[in-house]
Amino acid sequence: MTDETRHFVKELHSVKQELLAMGHIAEDRLRTAVGALVDRNTALLGEVVAGDSRLNDLQMAIDDRCFTLLALHQPVAVDLRTIVSAFKINSDLERVGDLAVNVAETAQRYLTHAPVKPLVDLPRMGDLALKMLREALDAFLGDDVGLANAVLQQDDWLDELRNQVFRELLTYMLSVPATIEPATELILISRHLERVGDHATNIAEDVIFVVEGRDVRHGASATPAVERRRPQMPSGI
Amino acid sequence: MTDETRHFVKELHSVKQELLAMGHIAEDRLRTAVGALVDRNTALLGEVVAGDSRLNDLQMAIDDRCFTLLALHQPVAVDLRTIVSAFKINSDLERVGDLAVNVAETAQRYLTHAPVKPLVDLPRMGDLALKMLREALDAFLGDDVGLANAVLQQDDWLDELRNQVFRELLTYMLSVPATIEPATELILISRHLERVGDHATNIAEDVIFVVEGRDVRHGASATPAVERRRPQMPSGI
Repeated sequence: MTDETRHFVKELHSVKQELLAMGHIAEDRLRTAVGALVDRNTALLGEVVAGDSRLNDLQMAIDDRCFTLLALHQPVAVDLRTIVSAFKINSDLERVGDLAVNVAETAQRYLTHAPVKPLVDLPRMGDLALKMLREALDAFLGDDVGLANAVLQQDDWLDELRNQVFRELLTYMLSVPATIEPATELILISRHLERVGDHATNIAEDVIFVVEGRDVRHGASATPAVERRRPQMPSGI
Repeated sequence: MTDETRHFVKELHSVKQELLAMGHIAEDRLRTAVGALVDRNTALLGEVVAGDSRLNDLQMAIDDRCFTLLALHQPVAVDLRTIVSAFKINSDLERVGDLAVNVAETAQRYLTHAPVKPLVDLPRMGDLALKMLREALDAFLGDDVGLANAVLQQDDWLDELRNQVFRELLTYMLSVPATIEPATELILISRHLERVGDHATNIAEDVIFVVEGRDVRHGASATPAVERRRPQMPSGI
């Protein structure tokens, strides 16, 4: 291994670690926002809305390092795909941080009303989206296509939870007019959480592309249909 | 200019043209979806939901060409930034295509109900989002930082329209229970259109980064505050 190759491998590893650190901050912020919604903790929501400069600093630092790696080492094949994916994953994680702010802002408006009902499916959506994000990043760190495929499968489950949340909240809105405004806010929160799952899906697709050089974005099934398990659905918001 | 440079410049121009073509298809699909919502044309909505394989084909072709350009020519500075931005813009345009499908699917559900009211602000949001997208792509094609800044300014306007749509629809929901479900669908459509504006904003920020090598994503104002005009707001959904 030449000095240059060694330097490249070390730098790439370090970029992946920074992406993981960024992922952890984004996850923490989303977990805090959903937890504060459930606990009706407006102070905590305010902290999430105030933002976290570490996320922005990390994003710009990671982009810079990726540009430097491209310019200095002119990588090809899997190394090139990894760096281009790092740019994309960096954007995805920044958006998850933005979505945590969106959840917190919407939750702040929700908390100006009386509770619609005990929240069950919404935090469940949050847990699932966070699990998908964590697994997608672990798959990126370990070039783990199997784990990436598992993330893709869970997205259907998140969509079903979203539909369930929508139908149940609509029932409340139709029977108790006072719930119309707060229930609408909860529906919007469910859409923000769905989008976190979309970003986890993007990352998982990038992992499959990096490792296999195969594009799974458009219909090409990542695993044979027979291996796709239908997830078991829970119930109650 | 060497043969290699000539080839690179030609290829880069061609990639930009393909991104523009992709942008036009995505715009058409969104315009069709919003128009079909206003005209209550379920057949047209079905066509948008069915998808457009040209978008997916173009996206993969553009990604492939960008990878080839990076691997063959090992560009630096503004050329490198342009190609990395092309990857990102490619993703943004694909998402706009997805959002057109989201609008059409939500509109299909909306059209199973009686109209809530004549739609005015929602198509206005669609027009503004499309204008922003078009201008962002034109800015990318022409390395036009002034136009990119104009796009960033219009995003505030789109957010205000979104809030206006929300407040007005809530009024309907609170006074006429039969509008609760369809009005909720319209609110969700307004959020899809807002996200189209977000993608136009991403593209505009990329243009400024490509041309100036300056990152305007996090708070750094793209223009001096004194040049930021407050847009005039229209009214009525």
